Amino acid sequence: MSADGAARGLALEARAASRALVALPGAVRAAAIERVADALVARQGVILEANALDVADARRDVAQGTLSAALAKRLVLDPPKLALLADGLRVIARSDDPVGRVLRRTELAEGLVLRQETSPIGVLLVIFESRPDALVQIAGLSLRSANGVVLKGGREAARSNRALRDVIALALAPEVPPGAIGLVETREDIDALLALDDVIDLVIPRGSSDLVRHVQQHTKIPVLGHAEGVCHVYVDAAADPGKARDVVLDSKLDYPAACNAMETLLVHRDVADGLGASLVDALRDAGVKVYAGPRAAPVYGLEAAADLHHEYGDLAAAVEIVDDVDEAIAHVHRYGSAHTDAIVTEDPGAARRFLDRVDSACVFHNASTRFADGYRFGLGAEVGISTSRIHARGPVGVDGLLTTRWKLEGHGDTVAPFSQGVRAFTHRPL
Amino acid sequence: MSADGAARGLALEARAASRALVALPGAVRAAAIERVADALVARQGVILEANALDVADARRDVAQGTLSAALAKRLVLDPPKLALLADGLRVIARSDDPVGRVLRRTELAEGLVLRQETSPIGVLLVIFESRPDALVQIAGLSLRSANGVVLKGGREAARSNRALRDVIALALAPEVPPGAIGLVETREDIDALLALDDVIDLVIPRGSSDLVRHVQQHTKIPVLGHAEGVCHVYVDAAADPGKARDVVLDSKLDYPAACNAMETLLVHRDVADGLGASLVDALRDAGVKVYAGPRAAPVYGLEAAADLHHEYGDLAAAVEIVDDVDEAIAHVHRYGSAHTDAIVTEDPGAARRFLDRVDSACVFHNASTRFADGYRFGLGAEVGISTSRIHARGPVGVDGLLTTRWKLEGHGDTVAPFSQGVRAFTHRPL
Repeated sequence: MSADGAARGLALEARAASRALVALPGAVRAAAIERVADALVARQGVILEANALDVADARRDVAQGTLSAALAKRLVLDPPKLALLADGLRVIARSDDPVGRVLRRTELAEGLVLRQETSPIGVLLVIFESRPDALVQIAGLSLRSANGVVLKGGREAARSNRALRDVIALALAPEVPPGAIGLVETREDIDALLALDDVIDLVIPRGSSDLVRHVQQHTKIPVLGHAEGVCHVYVDAAADPGKARDVVLDSKLDYPAACNAMETLLVHRDVADGLGASLVDALRDAGVKVYAGPRAAPVYGLEAAADLHHEYGDLAAAVEIVDDVDEAIAHVHRYGSAHTDAIVTEDPGAARRFLDRVDSACVFHNASTRFADGYRFGLGAEVGISTSRIHARGPVGVDGLLTTRWKLEGHGDTVAPFSQGVRAFTHRPL
Repeated sequence: MSADGAARGLALEARAASRALVALPGAVRAAAIERVADALVARQGVILEANALDVADARRDVAQGTLSAALAKRLVLDPPKLALLADGLRVIARSDDPVGRVLRRTELAEGLVLRQETSPIGVLLVIFESRPDALVQIAGLSLRSANGVVLKGGREAARSNRALRDVIALALAPEVPPGAIGLVETREDIDALLALDDVIDLVIPRGSSDLVRHVQQHTKIPVLGHAEGVCHVYVDAAADPGKARDVVLDSKLDYPAACNAMETLLVHRDVADGLGASLVDALRDAGVKVYAGPRAAPVYGLEAAADLHHEYGDLAAAVEIVDDVDEAIAHVHRYGSAHTDAIVTEDPGAARRFLDRVDSACVFHNASTRFADGYRFGLGAEVGISTSRIHARGPVGVDGLLTTRWKLEGHGDTVAPFSQGVRAFTHRPL
């Protein structure tokens, strides 16, 4: 079959599986996930065998310089890792059923009751890189939310992913059709899937900015993800110096490559010489290459930043001086990516102004930008971080895999009597 | 300036206006809408003058056979209509502020509090046809939700729309920038705007299926709308004949061109001869041209439907016979458009099965499909009906114009102590 035909077939199977999942009681869906957890441990032999082949190939590629050692390391599965993944699945299985939650109930008129309930989106396409762990987590979240999913993993993990998928599919039988968790392996498959905006409801690219950008540019399907994180920390005139130092260093140094790491430090002009200079020094002492905006460059004697809209994603950052909180807000709006931006200040008015006006998914006061994360936010498993303003924004938990349906129950009700003024709407919240 | 440059300029002005609107207290935004309401009445002279010119042209076009009389009629504004529009704006102004509502509050750890608040999406593009009334309603909803909007109205109403926009912009000053309500007039403008997926966040096409489909096919911006409504009424073996008759006739006849009108009647085989035949007769008596699916055609002696996935949008419908509720569900999934589907039955098991499994935005039991409507659902002003599974589904009220932001307030908190096990997350809902 052609890649196009095969892709459509997988997506349609995922749609049918989602409908089968919705028809199952939540307890049955949960039990299926527990069976998958058990199978990951009970059938680890076949998984580890496949993984060993992937790892051997990866080590060869590392030796030949065609693969990074870090990437090869992330590929490795072992019994403790599988046990941890199984535990993660059990947590998902034992969480409250996200499907069929009643969000709103309204009596439209006497004897006519409307409710809005959560329901699965339908068919997800999740593209992830390298780590085969991700396959298990995504499968768990998709099953819990009754979505069908088509997965595309990294080429390096192809055999591991296939083994994991087979173990999962077998554990899901007989209630859950194997098409609930589809797997594709080639770039051609992905291109074919990205064209299926009539069957696939949401694409979640989990990986590099390049991957996200590529996906966004090559599909009409809605994309949940973030192509870039140009995050700011603004140190106000009224900042506590200790808090400023803690927040700035943690925001840049905790994990410099993360999307929620600080890329630009903004400093109020009144503290540019004292606190600002000491923050720049502290960053440089920690090994951060600091570039400067036009106004900060002469003050700190730093190399000019080529572009203030830039994600270094590394031990590097920019610094710029601003007149006040309003100029900081304007800078964030002009150069930021609406991901996560923070203010450090003891002035409640300035904090409020920043939090109310900065138009980003996450806006923080006296806290590190690194808190912008589904786990830290308490959302449970993280589906991703979205900089879209539609559907889901910021760190996204399982809620991001849900939509709603409206259910109306009546007694043969028709609209004509309402139009004629014979019956009246009550619109009473229940 | 080129259409592209002008379009981008308008969209950027709308973005700036949205940020200005967010910065205003809700009461100030509400007062601005009240001023617009007052101005519609106080300055009706200039509006009606412009409208008279549009109407004169339209009447000439009707006489020449290039415009439908119905369309020309919908163009007409008069003092009572303007007063009604003003009243509608006052209702919007006096409704609860939709912006800044706290949806969730969580203590992440001691002294570290996260909240999720509603916020405007940012920049909307709304395309509507003919009726200038729509401009006023959309402007009111956009202002209340602190969104900037670029509007494109029908060519026939160009002068009316311009006059309305000018009156609104003047009434909004000085707090609200005039760019909050942008207006474009040509097809070229729309094409240029649809390309701006980096500035415009959501497109809402309000009009024919052709318009919606065109927009969906020509933009990467998310679209809130429905290209088609292939709605079903399934009459079960356990249907009450009186309710079946009421629901079927209302679903088709109340407004045959509506997207939520019945297009296909499904009948359980056990009642195909009796109740089914009488429903077909009743539809035909009411002037409905009834086509049949392969199984119903010989039973009722009707012309075969060319395609069971078809929106007649007129006094026409299809009928088909199914074995049971499961086959009805399968038929809806195969031929429907996931808009609105209803079951008529006195069997609670069949009703529940249909409501739980039919994967449509609206699923009804013993109620006309025509209830699928924002006003009837009690959502206040209707933004549109969405058959997308992302962001908003089914009838959409002002909530569909909102997204959320996460606000975190701490005391200099950093993530490192949590990674090191020195501090622990509490994740306590507040």
